[in-house]
Amino acid sequence: MKMKKVAIVGASGYSGEVLVQLLLNHPHAELVAVTSRQYAGQTLAQVFPKFASHPKSKALRFSGPDAEALARQADVVFLALPHGVAAEYAVPLLGAGCGVIDLSADFRLRSADLYREFYAHDHPAPALLEKAVYGLPEHYRAEIKKSLLIASPGCYPTSILLPVIPLLKAGLIQPAGIIADSLSGVSGAGRKAELDYLFCECNESVRPYGVPKHRHLSEIEEQLSFAAGTKVTIQFTPHLIPVNRGILTTLYLAPAEPFRDAAGAAGLAEKISACYQSAYASEPFVRLLEGKSLPDTKNVVGTNVCEIAWRLDPRTGRLIVMSAEDNLIKGASGQAVQSLNLLCGFPETAGLI
Amino acid sequence: MKMKKVAIVGASGYSGEVLVQLLLNHPHAELVAVTSRQYAGQTLAQVFPKFASHPKSKALRFSGPDAEALARQADVVFLALPHGVAAEYAVPLLGAGCGVIDLSADFRLRSADLYREFYAHDHPAPALLEKAVYGLPEHYRAEIKKSLLIASPGCYPTSILLPVIPLLKAGLIQPAGIIADSLSGVSGAGRKAELDYLFCECNESVRPYGVPKHRHLSEIEEQLSFAAGTKVTIQFTPHLIPVNRGILTTLYLAPAEPFRDAAGAAGLAEKISACYQSAYASEPFVRLLEGKSLPDTKNVVGTNVCEIAWRLDPRTGRLIVMSAEDNLIKGASGQAVQSLNLLCGFPETAGLI
Amino acid sequence: MKMKKVAIVGASGYSGEVLVQLLLNHPHAELVAVTSRQYAGQTLAQVFPKFASHPKSKALRFSGPDAEALARQADVVFLALPHGVAAEYAVPLLGAGCGVIDLSADFRLRSADLYREFYAHDHPAPALLEKAVYGLPEHYRAEIKKSLLIASPGCYPTSILLPVIPLLKAGLIQPAGIIADSLSGVSGAGRKAELDYLFCECNESVRPYGVPKHRHLSEIEEQLSFAAGTKVTIQFTPHLIPVNRGILTTLYLAPAEPFRDAAGAAGLAEKISACYQSAYASEPFVRLLEGKSLPDTKNVVGTNVCEIAWRLDPRTGRLIVMSAEDNLIKGASGQAVQSLNLLCGFPETAGLI
Amino acid sequence: MKMKKVAIVGASGYSGEVLVQLLLNHPHAELVAVTSRQYAGQTLAQVFPKFASHPKSKALRFSGPDAEALARQADVVFLALPHGVAAEYAVPLLGAGCGVIDLSADFRLRSADLYREFYAHDHPAPALLEKAVYGLPEHYRAEIKKSLLIASPGCYPTSILLPVIPLLKAGLIQPAGIIADSLSGVSGAGRKAELDYLFCECNESVRPYGVPKHRHLSEIEEQLSFAAGTKVTIQFTPHLIPVNRGILTTLYLAPAEPFRDAAGAAGLAEKISACYQSAYASEPFVRLLEGKSLPDTKNVVGTNVCEIAWRLDPRTGRLIVMSAEDNLIKGASGQAVQSLNLLCGFPETAGLI
Repeated sequence: MKMKKVAIVGASGYSGEVLVQLLLNHPHAELVAVTSRQYAGQTLAQVFPKFASHPKSKALRFSGPDAEALARQADVVFLALPHGVAAEYAVPLLGAGCGVIDLSADFRLRSADLYREFYAHDHPAPALLEKAVYGLPEHYRAEIKKSLLIASPGCYPTSILLPVIPLLKAGLIQPAGIIADSLSGVSGAGRKAELDYLFCECNESVRPYGVPKHRHLSEIEEQLSFAAGTKVTIQFTPHLIPVNRGILTTLYLAPAEPFRDAAGAAGLAEKISACYQSAYASEPFVRLLEGKSLPDTKNVVGTNVCEIAWRLDPRTGRLIVMSAEDNLIKGASGQAVQSLNLLCGFPETAGLI
Repeated sequence: MKMKKVAIVGASGYSGEVLVQLLLNHPHAELVAVTSRQYAGQTLAQVFPKFASHPKSKALRFSGPDAEALARQADVVFLALPHGVAAEYAVPLLGAGCGVIDLSADFRLRSADLYREFYAHDHPAPALLEKAVYGLPEHYRAEIKKSLLIASPGCYPTSILLPVIPLLKAGLIQPAGIIADSLSGVSGAGRKAELDYLFCECNESVRPYGVPKHRHLSEIEEQLSFAAGTKVTIQFTPHLIPVNRGILTTLYLAPAEPFRDAAGAAGLAEKISACYQSAYASEPFVRLLEGKSLPDTKNVVGTNVCEIAWRLDPRTGRLIVMSAEDNLIKGASGQAVQSLNLLCGFPETAGLI
Repeated sequence: MKMKKVAIVGASGYSGEVLVQLLLNHPHAELVAVTSRQYAGQTLAQVFPKFASHPKSKALRFSGPDAEALARQADVVFLALPHGVAAEYAVPLLGAGCGVIDLSADFRLRSADLYREFYAHDHPAPALLEKAVYGLPEHYRAEIKKSLLIASPGCYPTSILLPVIPLLKAGLIQPAGIIADSLSGVSGAGRKAELDYLFCECNESVRPYGVPKHRHLSEIEEQLSFAAGTKVTIQFTPHLIPVNRGILTTLYLAPAEPFRDAAGAAGLAEKISACYQSAYASEPFVRLLEGKSLPDTKNVVGTNVCEIAWRLDPRTGRLIVMSAEDNLIKGASGQAVQSLNLLCGFPETAGLI
Repeated sequence: MKMKKVAIVGASGYSGEVLVQLLLNHPHAELVAVTSRQYAGQTLAQVFPKFASHPKSKALRFSGPDAEALARQADVVFLALPHGVAAEYAVPLLGAGCGVIDLSADFRLRSADLYREFYAHDHPAPALLEKAVYGLPEHYRAEIKKSLLIASPGCYPTSILLPVIPLLKAGLIQPAGIIADSLSGVSGAGRKAELDYLFCECNESVRPYGVPKHRHLSEIEEQLSFAAGTKVTIQFTPHLIPVNRGILTTLYLAPAEPFRDAAGAAGLAEKISACYQSAYASEPFVRLLEGKSLPDTKNVVGTNVCEIAWRLDPRTGRLIVMSAEDNLIKGASGQAVQSLNLLCGFPETAGLI
């Protein structure tokens, strides 16, 4: 299989670091450039000592971000930048025929109005919003294969969308009243020198934040609305917990029908099980837990897998669904590589197992 | 003020250890006996090196538990035992005129039927269920002062009841549909040599457990039902997070009235604020957070304080309430000492600030 | 006992925070002022939510640091500032008759030359170096009682000096070849917004730093030289470990005499034991471990105690001594309060047990 | 390259788990059997949920350990058993012509006398001690290629031997007086349900243990003695620190010659640098740090790399060498796979990068 040349813009954050790791070890991709304003001129080994022993890392040196130069070097460019600046690179790269996989939120919304509501300014390249594909392979596989601009979903959205979309599409839950309670490791905040994320401020601490209106609600709700065929508004509470990596989301859902049918058979449970089996049984990166197992971030950290388990509560009539993922892999860089594989016609699991 | 003699049965677990610490430093209580089958004969310093430098600790040696001997030595006895064995000590101690403060769940329910439903066996001393007072001082202060059997609430119940009871009593929220999502430190599982609680199994891990029917639901629902004047059934999901101590609970509640009144005034927010002020403004161990502050376990660990904050979400119409406490202090031993203070006529904050 | 009024300059760091906590709860001291350039104007509760429930905290608001104002308000002023700026406050405060307890390294050396060697600039107030007393109460108790300028030792020095000074004074170890290998919690680095101290950079990480010449060597070696009566140069390696608080130091020492005397009796072990007993058996804040016990930071964190244990290794002929302390209490703020107690004639353990 | 069939006896501990992970992903090895008395009959996915999504894991089920059956199934068998029981499997497996890679300490010593001294009983198969090769590939590569019994070194020994052996062989340090101060993550203690390794007992705790005579001293000293050509006795102090994985070792060494030669040139530093370059510059799994870099476990965890840095201290005349490794990979399972690669003629880095 022909190797593709790939580059990363903004490779010095936590997502960028994991992306470097995945691409250094990818069987069909050659990492030809990494950029960082802050570290331009330094080698990969200097910035990330952990990669120093990798044979492919010797020649790689951080450069300043230059879209033209990148377009000459790479077939596909990953943008691992803070929100708000991806358009600046995406426009010229796409113009030069490169594939672009953006890890920021900049192209994740279809609606420019929604973007303005949540981000408080106009989108810098609204025309691209229509072209971009939401890079959730389990639900947009065909579109990803055909697009050159992939808006790779973030960590919270992935942990919520994977468990909820199939249920909404199947009409098994009510679109109203969805609650998502999420617990995220500290790497989700990025590599930022702020007091709030110091070791002593996070260790032995658990805290909610951004209550009640978090920016990522916009993409979650837009995607759920597509799945439900009606406008969906959800309750979302993120919490910061003292682990490096991992997101655990607990979802509180209202079934659209009674637990038991008229004859007393456990119809709903069977339908939910069949729904998830149908959606994910053959997906390499979704693991449906069986028996008494519940998700645990330690079983997914370091992998591109999202674990899902569910319980019907006969006391309350609710469906509880729980998911776990590595926020930097399935919630960021692994998912982006999964899109790369689709985009380039590689096996979808290449470099990810 | 006359010193009271106190003893602890089962002092070698995490709650017992914190209870020892609080009582060694209590200005009006003298710790005269600590029992432990496992450590009988050893000094306090041998079992808990951290107490070895305390001047009062020299003379204390663990004894085997002997209700008669304890009744002779102590005015008040704390039971920090696993669930199910408290009655064995409570009956003779009460018979001998001692005060009993039980930290287990054994006397927390008023209904023997509910006990049987959740614990799968008959209560060993159902007559005591009627005598016991639920030791939540903020809501049973008068009763605690007059009772000799205090059933001190556990960590999850405290983190849920303190924020919810005032709202239910004031009729500000609907009794149906309450969801409590709780995150607990590992000490909540007790000092048990089980694989699940090893460092490497908990560190860098986050996981739900006991979904959907946790035993402590019974006392939570019974107390909420008393407050609401109607039967309350809640959704409760506990999670284990890698901190030693601390519980963070996020509550999803449905207001009983619209956010704004007919004239458009923010009536509900004012009523909630007034409700909490009325319930807790003068309480020494409940902290109502103001402004942008949200609860953080690191601000309550090591204290007997429960922090509470709330937000109305105009997008969903829900009321989100968050609480934080130290599961071993306000959620166990500190609350028990608070009851001791009430029982003995000490200042309520003695030994707790 | 008459209350003394105390103030803290630079109360917003980790040492300052613990000092606030200790002084709010001190039976004979009244905290009348806390200063911080950054937080001037904010209440104690706003900056440290954890203190919000303390009854004494209501009236306290951070002010900008103003030596004259402080001198009018307080009898004793604690300086919890970064190294290098203490002299600016100490000179006017001492001039106004205040007691000054400095937690920085600024007055810890007796030798201005040594200061210049290690800090690379001249000392701003060399005359005060002679007046200052090294605030290690176990070895300078009498001097502390009589001085108005206390240079309170830091965390690494305390963890090394307490175990080594008695052995050197007794001539039981050789002054040459001492090695101190220390492990410190992250709070030792201070509350600084730097990438190196982010949660994700410290958690699941262990690393040496400052090898081979750390600034604190100067005060350690000066004090050890006083004890030995000869110039002492030591090897010191600090490491950063992922705990909030605590220092564990392992010392490798060469006994000055053989393990066994001519008659084969275990003379050295008995002498070491007697030496430590003589030095510390009646000290409230040094705990000599017995039997198989070894120091563990979890047994001292939250207390002003330093644990010490030792082993003779017949295979190598060395004496291994291990100590553990809370770097923010016995290694900083607790020790400073211990000096306050001596300075003011309070019981030495006041506010510390 | 022809695939080799491999099996793991005792695959349910932490080393076994990492070995399973490495072998599931090995390009030239097929994992055909995993045994565990405790989990016999369960699938790999049931015991280790994290492997459930691996395509190769479907067919694997734990069996009880049966040497005969294993000999029929596998070309090479890994023994990841507690110390003391490896001989029971090694004898029949070797008899049947299998290769055996033992991760325990059972075959690491050449001297049966030394074994008896440190393990307090006779070795069960002393003849095998002569046949076994010490599986440290960087120093026994040729022997490993030719042997069928590899005694794979443990985590502490590897972290000490890799940095010290080249210096001893080159005569650059004195064989006497070596001190190794090591910090290990909790997984080093194994997956054992003991109170000492509970989360709450390890988190926020740092402690030395096994002072002064740890069992692993025997293999460390035997190997160092081979390198030095004279009997070497070292000082070794292990500490337990709250990380899952990683060992950091700090070594205090006495150079065999002055720092500067008669002409004042920095001769020693150049010799040390040349010594390490010669030993490890072309080794894929030893990383010599340059410039200001010091080892950090977070840069090696998850890899088979051992990082080494060194400093000469002109104040004390000592050489300080620091190493970091993942105790479960380079300190256990990765190193064992490295030996497998040598044994089978695979590229040495196969399955390890």
